[in-house]
Amino acid sequence: MFEIAELGHKVSKTDYLEKVPKLRTQLLTLQQQLRTQDFSVIILISGVDGGGKGEVINLLNEWLDPRFMRTNAYDSPSDEEKERPEFWRFWRTMPAKGTIGIYVGSWYSAPIATRVYEKINDAELQTHLTHINELEQELADDGTLIIKCWLHLKQEQQKKRLKQLEKDPETAWQVTERDKTHLKMYDAFVNVAEKVLTETSTAKNPWLIVEGSDIRYSSLTVGQQILDKINLHIETLQLKKSLPELVYTPQVIHGNQPNILDSLDLSLTLDKKTYNEQLNHYQGKLNKLARQAHEKKISSVLVFEGWDAGGKGGAIRRLTHALDARNYQVISIAAPTDEERMQHYLWRFWRHMPRAGRVTIYDRSWYGRVLVERAEGFATEEEWTRAYPEIRNFEEALTRHGVAILKFWLHIDPEEQMRRFKEREQISYKQHKITEEDYRNRDKWDAYSLAVNDMVARTSTQAAPWILVEGNDKRYARIKILKAYCEKLESMLG
Amino acid sequence: MFEIAELGHKVSKTDYLEKVPKLRTQLLTLQQQLRTQDFSVIILISGVDGGGKGEVINLLNEWLDPRFMRTNAYDSPSDEEKERPEFWRFWRTMPAKGTIGIYVGSWYSAPIATRVYEKINDAELQTHLTHINELEQELADDGTLIIKCWLHLKQEQQKKRLKQLEKDPETAWQVTERDKTHLKMYDAFVNVAEKVLTETSTAKNPWLIVEGSDIRYSSLTVGQQILDKINLHIETLQLKKSLPELVYTPQVIHGNQPNILDSLDLSLTLDKKTYNEQLNHYQGKLNKLARQAHEKKISSVLVFEGWDAGGKGGAIRRLTHALDARNYQVISIAAPTDEERMQHYLWRFWRHMPRAGRVTIYDRSWYGRVLVERAEGFATEEEWTRAYPEIRNFEEALTRHGVAILKFWLHIDPEEQMRRFKEREQISYKQHKITEEDYRNRDKWDAYSLAVNDMVARTSTQAAPWILVEGNDKRYARIKILKAYCEKLESMLG
Repeated sequence: MFEIAELGHKVSKTDYLEKVPKLRTQLLTLQQQLRTQDFSVIILISGVDGGGKGEVINLLNEWLDPRFMRTNAYDSPSDEEKERPEFWRFWRTMPAKGTIGIYVGSWYSAPIATRVYEKINDAELQTHLTHINELEQELADDGTLIIKCWLHLKQEQQKKRLKQLEKDPETAWQVTERDKTHLKMYDAFVNVAEKVLTETSTAKNPWLIVEGSDIRYSSLTVGQQILDKINLHIETLQLKKSLPELVYTPQVIHGNQPNILDSLDLSLTLDKKTYNEQLNHYQGKLNKLARQAHEKKISSVLVFEGWDAGGKGGAIRRLTHALDARNYQVISIAAPTDEERMQHYLWRFWRHMPRAGRVTIYDRSWYGRVLVERAEGFATEEEWTRAYPEIRNFEEALTRHGVAILKFWLHIDPEEQMRRFKEREQISYKQHKITEEDYRNRDKWDAYSLAVNDMVARTSTQAAPWILVEGNDKRYARIKILKAYCEKLESMLG
Repeated sequence: MFEIAELGHKVSKTDYLEKVPKLRTQLLTLQQQLRTQDFSVIILISGVDGGGKGEVINLLNEWLDPRFMRTNAYDSPSDEEKERPEFWRFWRTMPAKGTIGIYVGSWYSAPIATRVYEKINDAELQTHLTHINELEQELADDGTLIIKCWLHLKQEQQKKRLKQLEKDPETAWQVTERDKTHLKMYDAFVNVAEKVLTETSTAKNPWLIVEGSDIRYSSLTVGQQILDKINLHIETLQLKKSLPELVYTPQVIHGNQPNILDSLDLSLTLDKKTYNEQLNHYQGKLNKLARQAHEKKISSVLVFEGWDAGGKGGAIRRLTHALDARNYQVISIAAPTDEERMQHYLWRFWRHMPRAGRVTIYDRSWYGRVLVERAEGFATEEEWTRAYPEIRNFEEALTRHGVAILKFWLHIDPEEQMRRFKEREQISYKQHKITEEDYRNRDKWDAYSLAVNDMVARTSTQAAPWILVEGNDKRYARIKILKAYCEKLESMLG
């Protein structure tokens, strides 16, 4: 596939000087237009050493308005990054909507390098590529435009390029020992690159292979590609927006069938004495386990979802009571901030991923997408439907990294909810918790129940199961949660 | 994820008897409507043993009009099937557009079974699932609606179901030793099933999990699902068709750049004497190698593409001259037949896949999609763009199965083509080969050149490389092709 980038493409200096000003003007105008758009642009510049990646990126930085773009370079991951799932470092630097992110090195660098150095085999490489395709697919589904450019060079040219750089004292520093090693590994590198480019050139996110021997040619080609692709993307999205949404409403032709929530026995209770004993017991146990997990660098992600007044806050407090305040954080999910709104909906959850050995507790979570956003129509059917595989991939990235995930649904019945609403109105320090909206939401109990049922069906996995908590009795619920977390840590500490 | 199918969903007999007639009428009406549609429907019925797969399929067969549907059952692959790539057996039975195919067992059966019996590991299972996702994606991109139903049963219920069947002498025969073994492996089976369903529930092709303990409930649910999904699909496609197509025409801002075809040295020739010597030599060699390949059951797929009058026919004859007529077939690709038109465009190539140790030679091929169909506008940009990954996956399925693939592009220049056209007009037995259209096609030389260049860039891989043949001199071209095939067979015979 690289044959076509070994033909000696080049552009004369006169030609180049004539064309660059026009291209720059077009790019700057387009960047202004992009600012009002509802999508971001990711530009990956990869390729063989000496293929001119640095030069192309420098030129793009000159040509584009730096206020609306950022160049992200990824060298070896930092400690901070190593302690989190592999893709965390990329999520944290995702460009916001309306802006451009240029990536020097990317999610492709590590898989290619480790395969070339034979630290992973072909099957493992394939697994990496599957995750990359999923990531790019999810970003593209969210509207992100991904432009992937591969700068290629023949081996002889690579050699010549390095020689040239070495000869000139001004540029000799650019040539490292690693470059020389890579030169020897040219064939291995190109073989792996071919496999990677083949497997990840999807219809939606294809690679553009560019000959890198003449910087004028490659930079003009990449620049023009950026211009064309962004223009086309704007048109495509506008067209898509003009389409009405089709909604799939399954016909329930066979009466009321049991819901997963109906299977819970809400009469379960714990008397105060037993509760106090068990609370002491499990908090003590959890404290010990959490310290061990911290030492062994096992992180936890706990998700709390449930009905309004289901008892999430109280349960979380009973749990954090047993933890070291330096090691956990509770993230309350409300409406997204401006900054969060400019990103993929999972971005705001990625950013709070705990470091190794720490705990993040989400009071409401990414499941909002398939619960409230579905029930209230804030997300389109297309959006919440594809959220299921997105969420599974997201959680799988965490469990693959060794994170303990627990997801609790706090269930109460409508009568108990009403009782708690009334109670809140009576207690001064709880009054702020109850609004008109809470009463309105009760009308949608059935819609929410259906959403919970589907959520459990589609996102409860062995590695990250949903734990449905009978919550009419708060004492019973709190102990069940504490116990479940203890058991999970015990099994992971093995 | 199976919790929701363990809640005891059921439908009373009265309810059932009341609802079935309505559902049947709706299904039959819809089937009539489907006949005029440009897509096919694939229904997969899978699940645990005893989950009622057989019963549901029997009912669907009663409810639907058998003229426009077919049930495909896949047991152990036949010899015929084993000699071809894994998915061949599924391609050969794909439903035509406007019809429904019901699949008992499917591309999921083997990966699940081999993983449960621990004949493959998790990474290998993942690779299978990646191929499955690609297959389903390609079918869906072509418009195919895939409905995937999983019938679930609790272990106790599975046991009970088997006991019941065994007790009744009328049904005891249905219970095999394998069923009893599977009962013991319930947990292992459900674990693997969860992983498989999770990885293959994409946004576009999700699984529907149905409780299988009550056949009235499960058959109504599956029937209703089929009805809803087909209806929605018809609406969605209509909406899509109303969209104008956006075309991405890259701006060539930097003049004429060399094309891969320009890099060929068309002055290469062979004198008659050398040609005759080498022809003898390589035909003899090929004959020997082909016999060895036949014995070792190595199949070959040879693709010939090239300019009109490029010399494909002559080259193919020089090659088949060395082969045993019982072991090869030459497939000339012209316009698709009616039957082929009702299928995915790759279907007509899958059907000619050679058995083990045989040779299929395609005179023109699946590359028509990215050559003539692109250049002439017969395929939309969206269609030919996604054809690149589709073709790569297709060829990868062949190489994975151990098939030798060689792809030849016979290149001549426009002057040589004109000379040959004129020559053909002079020779009576060649006159039929030349039409007005051939002259017209010459106007699109540049468009075709661009298409060839992109084709090589995107589909030339190490396992299935494009061999560009300098064809102005027929003798040179024929020897190059013979030699390349010999070398390929030599390397595969080790």
